[in-house]
Amino acid sequence: MENREPASSAAVTASILVVGDEILSGRTKDKNIGYIAEFLTGAGIDVKEVRVVPDVEERIVEAVNALRSHYDYVLSTGGIGPTHDDITADSIAKAFGVSIDVSPQAVEIMTRHYGGAEHLTPARLRMARIPDGAELVLNPVSAAPGFMIGNVIVMAGVPNIMQRMLDNAIKKMRVGAVTLSDSVSPGPGIGEGIIAAPLAAIAEAHPEVSIGSYPSFGPAGFQTQLVIRGKDAAKVAAAKAEVEAMVAGIKR
Amino acid sequence: MENREPASSAAVTASILVVGDEILSGRTKDKNIGYIAEFLTGAGIDVKEVRVVPDVEERIVEAVNALRSHYDYVLSTGGIGPTHDDITADSIAKAFGVSIDVSPQAVEIMTRHYGGAEHLTPARLRMARIPDGAELVLNPVSAAPGFMIGNVIVMAGVPNIMQRMLDNAIKKMRVGAVTLSDSVSPGPGIGEGIIAAPLAAIAEAHPEVSIGSYPSFGPAGFQTQLVIRGKDAAKVAAAKAEVEAMVAGIKR
Repeated sequence: MENREPASSAAVTASILVVGDEILSGRTKDKNIGYIAEFLTGAGIDVKEVRVVPDVEERIVEAVNALRSHYDYVLSTGGIGPTHDDITADSIAKAFGVSIDVSPQAVEIMTRHYGGAEHLTPARLRMARIPDGAELVLNPVSAAPGFMIGNVIVMAGVPNIMQRMLDNAIKKMRVGAVTLSDSVSPGPGIGEGIIAAPLAAIAEAHPEVSIGSYPSFGPAGFQTQLVIRGKDAAKVAAAKAEVEAMVAGIKR
Repeated sequence: MENREPASSAAVTASILVVGDEILSGRTKDKNIGYIAEFLTGAGIDVKEVRVVPDVEERIVEAVNALRSHYDYVLSTGGIGPTHDDITADSIAKAFGVSIDVSPQAVEIMTRHYGGAEHLTPARLRMARIPDGAELVLNPVSAAPGFMIGNVIVMAGVPNIMQRMLDNAIKKMRVGAVTLSDSVSPGPGIGEGIIAAPLAAIAEAHPEVSIGSYPSFGPAGFQTQLVIRGKDAAKVAAAKAEVEAMVAGIKR
């Protein structure tokens, strides 16, 4: 990530926009939200909102305009393939009020990938259409590029392509201080109903960290994991020590 | 689902609101969106939008008010446990401008579950707080109920609890005609770049069905699945027959 801009001390925020009827129908189970969220968190960018919208221009335009005005970055997935239902690139151009046309740079990359201009069918050329003013986000898997325009990064929906585009996109993004995360697992004997009051007191005493309780239900019954997150390692460690002491003090 | 209202001929729409910092940080990978989407689609309710927001009152209020005014239903998951970071019920009350207090009915259910009122710690009682005017959505797994207020259904975030709440919630919902779905898999030899143009022509000739192309990348390289969706079985079948004929006509 040698081209990445230096980490800033201010928080950097992002949102994720997933485009696709197949996610909303439940036919395809999204795998990109969790991946992008974890990736950006690890890079010091805080994801603050996610939206999933259908393959409908008006809805994509509305969502991208709402998100790009609220957060430092918007990362979208889906809808940049060659078929008639792939309308993300056109919708993004409309959201920015710019024209969209075949990009000579994208054509060159795709011509090389497909082994000659004669293999660039009209459908494949459709994937070379890039909004005016955008820069390409390269796709080492299948050539057809994503792009970045303003603070919006547009990527493919197929997970392994999206992941390689994200590796390239992060180089173009400003990153912040990484949010550190540590956790305490009280074990199956101690439910949320027991630790909630002392945990709330610790959370109130440590306003610069966020403390969450995440229950799950497994073969051993309910368990919860207590997660302490913050930008300052010493503050996270101090809060964690209090959580550990609180858990140790509870009679089993 | 014997209590369910009869299917209406008009489309019924829904949105999903996921509340939780742990989803936005990528620490927890959401499993509820895909489940709810598939469940509602199967029941004849079309999911039109999903949002994920943090455990921040203002953001929950804003999202639930936007979604409930646009869609027939909002289904939320997460943030109704006993810990300090569980603020969904209070935020929903605020969104509706109603008060929130301990529900005698919820207390009765939880007292029975925990084996006596003496086990209802203040933290557990917190889970019995229900906005004024809401009706309970029962939780056969761990007793603490969800609720429905207006067109908003509020459920737990733990997947197996959410799923049982959803079984109960659907009985309170109006359902529409089920969207039928059928698909054609051209196989590894035929990519989107080849079928895009004839597929678009078929899509245009069949405006009452929606035709999507969903590529994936596996050991055999790229493949795509062509999905035909619609409310009318004869129209879906007619479009599917044309898609099959188109695929069969492509030289491999």
